[in-house]
Amino acid sequence: MGTARAVRAGSSSAVAPEERLAAFPEVTGGHVAALEAVCSSLETDPHVLAGASRDWIGRYQGRAGVLVAPKDTDEVAAVMRVCAEAGLAVVPQGGKTGLVGGSVPLLAGDGGCGPDSGAKEVVLSLRRMNAIESIDVDAGVVHAQAGVVLESLEAAVAEAGFTVPLDLGAKGSCHVGGNVATNAGGIHFVRYGSLHGSVLGLEVVLPSGDVLDSRTSLRKNNTGYDLKQLFIGSEGTLGVITRVSLWLPPAPQAKSVALLGVDSFASAVALVRTARVHLGDAVSALEFMDRTSIECVLAHARGRDPLGTATPFYVLVEAAGASEPAVAAAMDSLLEHAMDSPKLGVLDGTLAADGQQAAELWHLREACTEGIMGAGAVYKYDLSLPTAQMYDVVESVRERMAGVDGAVVVGYGHLGDANLHLNIAVPEYSSEVEHLLEPYVYEATAALAGSISAEHGLGQMKASVAHYSQSKTALAYMRAIKDVFDPQGILNPGKVLV
Amino acid sequence: MGTARAVRAGSSSAVAPEERLAAFPEVTGGHVAALEAVCSSLETDPHVLAGASRDWIGRYQGRAGVLVAPKDTDEVAAVMRVCAEAGLAVVPQGGKTGLVGGSVPLLAGDGGCGPDSGAKEVVLSLRRMNAIESIDVDAGVVHAQAGVVLESLEAAVAEAGFTVPLDLGAKGSCHVGGNVATNAGGIHFVRYGSLHGSVLGLEVVLPSGDVLDSRTSLRKNNTGYDLKQLFIGSEGTLGVITRVSLWLPPAPQAKSVALLGVDSFASAVALVRTARVHLGDAVSALEFMDRTSIECVLAHARGRDPLGTATPFYVLVEAAGASEPAVAAAMDSLLEHAMDSPKLGVLDGTLAADGQQAAELWHLREACTEGIMGAGAVYKYDLSLPTAQMYDVVESVRERMAGVDGAVVVGYGHLGDANLHLNIAVPEYSSEVEHLLEPYVYEATAALAGSISAEHGLGQMKASVAHYSQSKTALAYMRAIKDVFDPQGILNPGKVLV
Repeated sequence: MGTARAVRAGSSSAVAPEERLAAFPEVTGGHVAALEAVCSSLETDPHVLAGASRDWIGRYQGRAGVLVAPKDTDEVAAVMRVCAEAGLAVVPQGGKTGLVGGSVPLLAGDGGCGPDSGAKEVVLSLRRMNAIESIDVDAGVVHAQAGVVLESLEAAVAEAGFTVPLDLGAKGSCHVGGNVATNAGGIHFVRYGSLHGSVLGLEVVLPSGDVLDSRTSLRKNNTGYDLKQLFIGSEGTLGVITRVSLWLPPAPQAKSVALLGVDSFASAVALVRTARVHLGDAVSALEFMDRTSIECVLAHARGRDPLGTATPFYVLVEAAGASEPAVAAAMDSLLEHAMDSPKLGVLDGTLAADGQQAAELWHLREACTEGIMGAGAVYKYDLSLPTAQMYDVVESVRERMAGVDGAVVVGYGHLGDANLHLNIAVPEYSSEVEHLLEPYVYEATAALAGSISAEHGLGQMKASVAHYSQSKTALAYMRAIKDVFDPQGILNPGKVLV
Repeated sequence: MGTARAVRAGSSSAVAPEERLAAFPEVTGGHVAALEAVCSSLETDPHVLAGASRDWIGRYQGRAGVLVAPKDTDEVAAVMRVCAEAGLAVVPQGGKTGLVGGSVPLLAGDGGCGPDSGAKEVVLSLRRMNAIESIDVDAGVVHAQAGVVLESLEAAVAEAGFTVPLDLGAKGSCHVGGNVATNAGGIHFVRYGSLHGSVLGLEVVLPSGDVLDSRTSLRKNNTGYDLKQLFIGSEGTLGVITRVSLWLPPAPQAKSVALLGVDSFASAVALVRTARVHLGDAVSALEFMDRTSIECVLAHARGRDPLGTATPFYVLVEAAGASEPAVAAAMDSLLEHAMDSPKLGVLDGTLAADGQQAAELWHLREACTEGIMGAGAVYKYDLSLPTAQMYDVVESVRERMAGVDGAVVVGYGHLGDANLHLNIAVPEYSSEVEHLLEPYVYEATAALAGSISAEHGLGQMKASVAHYSQSKTALAYMRAIKDVFDPQGILNPGKVLV
């Protein structure tokens, strides 16, 4: 196919959601009857559907024609066959904790939700497929259905002496299938790396109803192309993930958490480099927050000022390992060095004395999302950038927003992974503010060869701006891959590729 | 496309290499002139080409029509455009250390090598693209051309305080591009995991001459499908990897190596589970050898019997970490527990007192390949199996070979990754022996839901038996992916998919 296929990168932001749905039929009572015949749980109440069509931050409100909640893979496959036959658009839905509108229907005019309302999308919820099927203790692998909540998975594998190589603020609601579909990152990425390395196998129902099953306890299998990799981070546009086989590291037996206040972002970067040297593989998390983030947490979420003095930046360091003395020794070595090195710019710091104190320190970081949302309507950006230049983007956006009354600009995130969460709160969403921010933020990111979506994905929010981080050639081949798995384009239309 | 496409799994082993090449034109002097016009180094000497067409264990001898060795990506792209235009078959070649004939031309009748000899394949060597381009010390990432030898890469990043998350016996010859193309595993897989997690970006030249460039220092980038994952382990059948961006862990500052002799394979498995508990993330390698492997090493490679008594199985344990005391404490804890637990079946053991002794212990494991090759003509199998049942396959093959004079059957490998290297040496290759082994070994592996190629890949050896580890649905979609990137099928024909 070469690159002859037209790539609409850079021009598609003008395509309205309604237009993207134009080719699809409306969900009718007849469709509902056909789905009811193959799926044991189905919802048509307009109010329930409206809730399932709204993302949790309230930025996206679409219209579902019906919601199906299959109980097993066979039902998912049967649902897909009905939808493929009718050409219906299908939106796979996990815990609905995403931030880019990837798991809810697109906006599509008036008329509300439900069959025969003009709504065009079938929401396929994985919530009833929530069994933890088995844990292979020899291999350190869990086999689970896609709808298992991450926190439940963590609790189950902890009993067997393992941990899940993934931890997020949304763990109480997000589903492991959704984590895989969005290639979730989170706070332990710096230790355990990407899901591309941790997911050993998947069961995926394709738009045709075919089931692609690579579930395994084997860490090594080089017998052809690793197709499952394509579904990791495809945001439900290539297939519906129904089961996950996930590699499990041994649960750390000891942890140590410290919060250090530093005088500048450059010092935070230097501190992180030092932490890697002193902690080695005991590094468990390397997070940062600016002072404005902390102030948002203090104002809008519970928490108290963590250090005696307010400092411009905060670095949260977690070390973990198999033995208490080894972890303590590693952390001591880091702290001693940090306090004795003026060039690291450490102004103050605290080492958690127990689990309670550690949780309080972690709360400050985890409450950043809630804190900034309390400050207004929030524009959220999730960027990867060269570490040393990461905060420049926050500062330049702060300057751009100087004239907007009540604007609050914060930067926090996964410093060890060069992943910045840039958030801008304003009294209300407006096109003026949006024009100040976009495409500016994307251009600034692209200029530094960064990623405009480090861990949140593209969803419907960023599908039309993917070209800032992907070449035309790459986008053309992505489209060709989409055509292989979903030739009718019925899976999650308007997401990822537009 | 669904699964309507015909899948030849299970029936294609009858297709002779000659037949696979039938559709391709012969390499002519005209082709050589066209390639010479775009590539700064080119080889037509029949003897040189014969060498480049033979794999290092002497099992495969094909016929190259010409060898090109481009100096940069532009030359690779130009070569691909010439070959695509002429419909010529192209075999990408790295360090040629593979074990399944993936990097050499197929057998194709008589007539020798060189243009106008009837040979049909262009060998594309990456050997001149051997620059280590840069090391990003903030991110811990190296950017290198595909032809860099793994050992050179390790030496370069070690100077910057990092290590390569990959180590193999072939490190003195293998290329990092070949490592990625074959998704090489090796002895530190148990610590650092798969290249699917460690490769941050690739530059790939596609059969069309298009360049797909995802090189990056960013660990996180969720802006669409992760296309680079498809090339990891595709064995040069989808594109030619020209550059690699590889994540680097910090170099361990301390290591400790022990060799334990145990009374049974079950004890070896129990010991490995214990080692994970006591070493936690300090686990650096968990290898095993049976007594026959050691005897082959003693007979055919240098080395001395490592323990006072001969034991049925040997487990090599390496711990590594950021501090000497922490690593020593972890290893002590393991050894104390191992010696005090009769159920772990430890009969004897030794802890390396220094680097020299550690190297001697490692040599025993690394010399297994050489040792068994000294025992005759070797059939090599590389299997993943449920850990506890892994050695059953060795024992049953030993029984099957009981009637073959001079047959030696050994099992060794990466016990922590459930990866068994089953090797059978006989006085000479014969169809009788082959019929004893195949499809028996593959059937036994499939019966346990194992992988018939854990880390070596399929190459030309196992392309026709991939169906033992992959479903028809998976094979059909692999074929569709191949068609997306290589619609003419000119890249490495007869490998991976046949």
